[in-house]
Amino acid sequence: MTNETSTPTDIFSRRESEARSYCRSFPTRFARAKGSELWDDQGRRYIDFLAGCSSLNYGHNDPDMQAALVEHIQADGITHGLDMFTDTKAKFLQAVEDIILKPRDMDYKVMMTGPTGTNAVEAAMKLARKITGRRNIIAFTNGFHGMTMGALSCTGNSGKRAGAGTPLCGTTHMPFEGAFGDDVDSLSLIEQMLDNSSSGVDAPAAFIIEPVQGEGGLNAASTEFMQGVARLAQKHGALLIADDIQAGCGRTGTFFSFEEMGIEPDLIPMAKSFSGMGLPFAALLLKPELDIWKPAEHNGTFRGNTHAFVTARVALEKFWKDDTFQKELAEKAVLLTSGLQSVAEAVPGAKLKGRGLMQGVDVGSGELAGDICARCFEKGLIIETSGADDEVVKVLAPLTTSSELMQEGLGILLEATIEATQSSKMAAE
Amino acid sequence: MTNETSTPTDIFSRRESEARSYCRSFPTRFARAKGSELWDDQGRRYIDFLAGCSSLNYGHNDPDMQAALVEHIQADGITHGLDMFTDTKAKFLQAVEDIILKPRDMDYKVMMTGPTGTNAVEAAMKLARKITGRRNIIAFTNGFHGMTMGALSCTGNSGKRAGAGTPLCGTTHMPFEGAFGDDVDSLSLIEQMLDNSSSGVDAPAAFIIEPVQGEGGLNAASTEFMQGVARLAQKHGALLIADDIQAGCGRTGTFFSFEEMGIEPDLIPMAKSFSGMGLPFAALLLKPELDIWKPAEHNGTFRGNTHAFVTARVALEKFWKDDTFQKELAEKAVLLTSGLQSVAEAVPGAKLKGRGLMQGVDVGSGELAGDICARCFEKGLIIETSGADDEVVKVLAPLTTSSELMQEGLGILLEATIEATQSSKMAAE
Amino acid sequence: MTNETSTPTDIFSRRESEARSYCRSFPTRFARAKGSELWDDQGRRYIDFLAGCSSLNYGHNDPDMQAALVEHIQADGITHGLDMFTDTKAKFLQAVEDIILKPRDMDYKVMMTGPTGTNAVEAAMKLARKITGRRNIIAFTNGFHGMTMGALSCTGNSGKRAGAGTPLCGTTHMPFEGAFGDDVDSLSLIEQMLDNSSSGVDAPAAFIIEPVQGEGGLNAASTEFMQGVARLAQKHGALLIADDIQAGCGRTGTFFSFEEMGIEPDLIPMAKSFSGMGLPFAALLLKPELDIWKPAEHNGTFRGNTHAFVTARVALEKFWKDDTFQKELAEKAVLLTSGLQSVAEAVPGAKLKGRGLMQGVDVGSGELAGDICARCFEKGLIIETSGADDEVVKVLAPLTTSSELMQEGLGILLEATIEATQSSKMAAE
Amino acid sequence: MTNETSTPTDIFSRRESEARSYCRSFPTRFARAKGSELWDDQGRRYIDFLAGCSSLNYGHNDPDMQAALVEHIQADGITHGLDMFTDTKAKFLQAVEDIILKPRDMDYKVMMTGPTGTNAVEAAMKLARKITGRRNIIAFTNGFHGMTMGALSCTGNSGKRAGAGTPLCGTTHMPFEGAFGDDVDSLSLIEQMLDNSSSGVDAPAAFIIEPVQGEGGLNAASTEFMQGVARLAQKHGALLIADDIQAGCGRTGTFFSFEEMGIEPDLIPMAKSFSGMGLPFAALLLKPELDIWKPAEHNGTFRGNTHAFVTARVALEKFWKDDTFQKELAEKAVLLTSGLQSVAEAVPGAKLKGRGLMQGVDVGSGELAGDICARCFEKGLIIETSGADDEVVKVLAPLTTSSELMQEGLGILLEATIEATQSSKMAAE
Repeated sequence: MTNETSTPTDIFSRRESEARSYCRSFPTRFARAKGSELWDDQGRRYIDFLAGCSSLNYGHNDPDMQAALVEHIQADGITHGLDMFTDTKAKFLQAVEDIILKPRDMDYKVMMTGPTGTNAVEAAMKLARKITGRRNIIAFTNGFHGMTMGALSCTGNSGKRAGAGTPLCGTTHMPFEGAFGDDVDSLSLIEQMLDNSSSGVDAPAAFIIEPVQGEGGLNAASTEFMQGVARLAQKHGALLIADDIQAGCGRTGTFFSFEEMGIEPDLIPMAKSFSGMGLPFAALLLKPELDIWKPAEHNGTFRGNTHAFVTARVALEKFWKDDTFQKELAEKAVLLTSGLQSVAEAVPGAKLKGRGLMQGVDVGSGELAGDICARCFEKGLIIETSGADDEVVKVLAPLTTSSELMQEGLGILLEATIEATQSSKMAAE
Repeated sequence: MTNETSTPTDIFSRRESEARSYCRSFPTRFARAKGSELWDDQGRRYIDFLAGCSSLNYGHNDPDMQAALVEHIQADGITHGLDMFTDTKAKFLQAVEDIILKPRDMDYKVMMTGPTGTNAVEAAMKLARKITGRRNIIAFTNGFHGMTMGALSCTGNSGKRAGAGTPLCGTTHMPFEGAFGDDVDSLSLIEQMLDNSSSGVDAPAAFIIEPVQGEGGLNAASTEFMQGVARLAQKHGALLIADDIQAGCGRTGTFFSFEEMGIEPDLIPMAKSFSGMGLPFAALLLKPELDIWKPAEHNGTFRGNTHAFVTARVALEKFWKDDTFQKELAEKAVLLTSGLQSVAEAVPGAKLKGRGLMQGVDVGSGELAGDICARCFEKGLIIETSGADDEVVKVLAPLTTSSELMQEGLGILLEATIEATQSSKMAAE
Repeated sequence: MTNETSTPTDIFSRRESEARSYCRSFPTRFARAKGSELWDDQGRRYIDFLAGCSSLNYGHNDPDMQAALVEHIQADGITHGLDMFTDTKAKFLQAVEDIILKPRDMDYKVMMTGPTGTNAVEAAMKLARKITGRRNIIAFTNGFHGMTMGALSCTGNSGKRAGAGTPLCGTTHMPFEGAFGDDVDSLSLIEQMLDNSSSGVDAPAAFIIEPVQGEGGLNAASTEFMQGVARLAQKHGALLIADDIQAGCGRTGTFFSFEEMGIEPDLIPMAKSFSGMGLPFAALLLKPELDIWKPAEHNGTFRGNTHAFVTARVALEKFWKDDTFQKELAEKAVLLTSGLQSVAEAVPGAKLKGRGLMQGVDVGSGELAGDICARCFEKGLIIETSGADDEVVKVLAPLTTSSELMQEGLGILLEATIEATQSSKMAAE
Repeated sequence: MTNETSTPTDIFSRRESEARSYCRSFPTRFARAKGSELWDDQGRRYIDFLAGCSSLNYGHNDPDMQAALVEHIQADGITHGLDMFTDTKAKFLQAVEDIILKPRDMDYKVMMTGPTGTNAVEAAMKLARKITGRRNIIAFTNGFHGMTMGALSCTGNSGKRAGAGTPLCGTTHMPFEGAFGDDVDSLSLIEQMLDNSSSGVDAPAAFIIEPVQGEGGLNAASTEFMQGVARLAQKHGALLIADDIQAGCGRTGTFFSFEEMGIEPDLIPMAKSFSGMGLPFAALLLKPELDIWKPAEHNGTFRGNTHAFVTARVALEKFWKDDTFQKELAEKAVLLTSGLQSVAEAVPGAKLKGRGLMQGVDVGSGELAGDICARCFEKGLIIETSGADDEVVKVLAPLTTSSELMQEGLGILLEATIEATQSSKMAAE
């Protein structure tokens, strides 16, 4: 820890709840950020391979978003407007329609939920249950969908579930693709459970799935698996909720993580990078025929963050109007894969996880992964772990990271991995 | 409706979910806002007696907050930092300590929850259950605490509860003060239920109460009632959660709505005006000895909105450093009471509700109240209803509203009330 | 304790679960029973004022029931027939129709549930929820309906509820008549809670109520209260479940405890004395139009105990064919009231509870009541307590108890009460 | 249907709930039964291959049990004694200790639950949750454990679950051995789900399993599977509940169905044939160290059916004092297997299910199985189906059935099967 944060009378120790977490891995005070770099209050520079857990896909403080937001503020644009109509919201919705939906031949409405991913997930769960008259929602092993009581019931992590202080209800957890190893066909198991009228698994209101599981260890579902889940949902009268909160907004190489998979989710919770600039913002995309909400049936004070409408619109216009950005992502993904292969080779038994700009290395143990990340931080790289046992070192760099910075960061990661692996071997001997 | 919003091909009709609601009462596009006034895209001016449902206690676009936020943005200050340490957060916490806690002799820690009131409530519920090992949370008739599955189970409104699409669990709803008329002592009933070991009401983990029920009809608990609830909580080993999301931040005349009541809530969810400027932001204040959270046991991507740290700090420094603002609030409350008395006199059987700058008039029917608000809108005043049957016309003007504007708004309200009452009488005849 | 039961190697200590309870109050081995008397294996005689908690309304081993049952057995009559048609069942149903339903102008069908009261209650709860599509069942303070998960959720006793080891769900507990003292109108409170659409009390599937609460302290609902509950149920689209398991079969002076109240419950769980002889047997009476069960939708191996069909039929034919028995009950109730008044007078502050042959004395404390019962046992009378704090000494003598035996038992009770009260005074001094 | 039951004014149509079921398959009135035969009121004889769903393992009206019961009744023995001590209960417990526990080197206590299997299961669930402080109970596909709310949540059948009218909670359903075909190792899947701390499957309070699934289709778990479940339970701190309600009391060839498997279940619900004669009776065997029940923490009026104590003791003494009966069972099982093989050969694709005297034939469709059973009834054989789709023709003849009767019954079954199969083929052509 730096001097600033280590004294017992420190303002954070005194006044911020013990629930705080990332600050424990990165014990310094950050003061400034631009693109893929952060600086702490001592002026020390860090490369950011965490990017707000994929909330900063376009990097910190994109100048165009900054400019638009400052202009909006200085013009006394609406800051908070509940869910009233504003020009700002109209322009955002128009951008969603023109830039995201039409080119992809998608027809969805946008529900402004409370500005958190968990709130969009809760809205999706409520709607699926209302529509089907069923309660059971099928979630997947290692899935993460949020921390409020509904979304938490879909989340797999036992520590987070225990935080509820009371049993969670109304969901069935099924194996994600590959959860039982390569030899076991998860989809077939799920289908057999649902087809058996005496399985004890109640007819589902919905399936909720992350096409790439971010917190769960960068498990990337194949097209076959996603299509299979979509087929099962349809067969059993359930909705398909594709939670693209972490994997969406270009993270896997396309705007939606599933858009090349030939499926049409019924409900798509979006958050994290959807605002473009890291502002709190979430929404639920829903097929128009499912929009049976009564006015305010799900509401919330901060639904429709107007500042976020401004930056989200700029993000869409700047990065998604044509395929330039998407092509760059493909190139960067190759770079990342290549760099991570070197990292994986440095750890016996390690293997690559994820896809696109959402990749990492499973180093086999949470202890080693934690040591690697700690050494990275010492060397000026911010990077975190994921997975049930924190065993995956996960790269979530801004999608806008330059090749040079990407290489620099990967170099630090490789160095830290080699050191940590050697240290681990020595400790074992 | 204006031309912009009435066409079937309108972007909002096409792309925004039917869950939208306030836009239905105020069918125009808002473009600009300052202080207590909004302007739509046709340049039409509206006085704001809604204030983002008490999220804009300091008015729209306070110039000092604007300036500080713009400066922060232009200096590449952190926009999104998960829950890492930042100078911005340190300054905010210091301001909370110096300006809010110390002068009130309060000792609380701040938990940065997801930036919605409902998320802070969920965190409070989880913590109370973890601490006590019990599940039952006692909520009150007409209470409103949010729309995610946990908070919704504490919310009274049957329409909102039905939105869950599945039964809600784990709470017991008890009568708020006066719920059964003046002759029945709600507190005594609750005490008898809890004292009877065969009542079927399980030992509570917590009581959750709004000192003034905002959505429930501006029901203001007396000091005696709040002290009684605090005593019952202590007697039965339960925590006291004072939900000050709508009534806090000066709305009732003091920073906390309960601060002159001689009680010390264990947990205090804050949101709405806590950011100062209407930015999404929420927090849970908790007594230090209750801070048993493990790191990230309740987390969320947008916990700790850095932009909100900036504006929230300015709000505390500008309005709460001394008692000037609080004294002004007392004067304005008198003005408001006086104006609303005139309104009440215009409606047979009407009565005043609420306290401080959170007052309204129960006009006896939701139909009449709705007509009054619709007429106000036509006349350039934005105002809404609350209550189980929407029977209360509720004034939630910015606390910074000048006397002149307050008078102007109250004048419109009186005019609309007289017209609506007459129209109602004529319809009845 | 007798020698037989006090040794550590005793078969009961070794092999019967600690869940056993009545044997703790009456620590001897019973060997024989007839009418209202029991004898232990030492030949000691006891008067029975417990009667299997109202399961032996016609006394032990009624000779006509014995004879019919022995004849059935010796003729190789069906002992166990699942729910197949038998002559025995036909005769039982015919007796129910002819002797119970027709004379009372009641039209009900009989559902053979598992042979326990709790099973009949579970069937009623399931059916009410199926019919209404709602989950919430309104139960009452101090109610007791059984110990399986569904029925237990309707039961008030906190110790029994805690036995579930997990939170109970799906019920709302409302105050029984007089629960808050004579000044508070429970019915009005319930009505206000249900009429308030923001009370947080979900629309009920059913009300479940014991017309006289047996375990809860012999609280007898008035006709007005029962009619009020019936009216509320109808008003809110809920079913009325009158749990007559303990109070039925003549215990209050009429076959059904509510039959002179002018109400028509939708569902009537019956058990305890319904078999006549104390054999395990239960049934759910249901209005024909509510009989939407699919075959075996609620089933159970022992539904329709054929031995019980035999004895139940004899009981109906012997005691209920005309009004002779009912008239005797009225006379005995006067005798009982008179005797208990003397008992009550012996204890300062004591008061009578209950009605008909289901009366007792609230002596103010469970300790005193327990002492009285223990002294009764020493003197040859078996009698137990009830109430939330076991504060009521409860007389549940067989309805067939002769005046002489009743007087003898009441005499013992008076004597024990005087002694216990004096002992209690001396201890206090 | 016979004349007696087909008229609309029939007493059963008028007065017995539509929930009745077996009477629909066997539409006649039964009047008398002895051993493995029943006679209806027209004097028609039926061979009983259903035996009260394994409640009549010792046949109808065993003469020794009849005699003992008649003697008990005529001597004014206790009929109903709540859970007081009686000589009758002592003798029963002594027989359990001497004849069942000691020879098998088992140490269990007996909890007298309500006299239904579902009640014993509820008691087991409650105790497991109390002991572990956890809620999740792992049940298996195709499992059947009862119809009250707790037991029903462990039951797989969707029709029966739907009967609850409300979602069921607190259980996780895992695949039984072979549920996903021979290639998938169910045990390994379960272990992986439990070992993965992010699977979303909460730590279990207990596993509940039928060693042979009676209602679920005569699925017999192997020793390896049962040992695996026992090992998983121990590894994860959960109790093992072996539900031997249908498979126990000699049905599989030994007293307990699992006694040759080298496992020691923590809790063993018993019912059905435990009373010997088909009287309502159930109990929970529990390891002494788990007997943490407080007095009456789980209770019920009819716990400890005294008549059943009498017949149950006779059954133990008559059939289990030495290994004669068990040896006979082994021989009869061979006979049964052989007969069913002939049946299976008559149906293309059919296969044998179950073990011991609990075997049947999976004929591939519920329609065919139903037709076979209907034809059997016409020919004087009572036999039923089981399985998720009622696709298994199930033989549950009394264990005491003579070889001649067994052959006769199997002959009818073969004949009916051949006819039904041909009829099915003709219909298909």
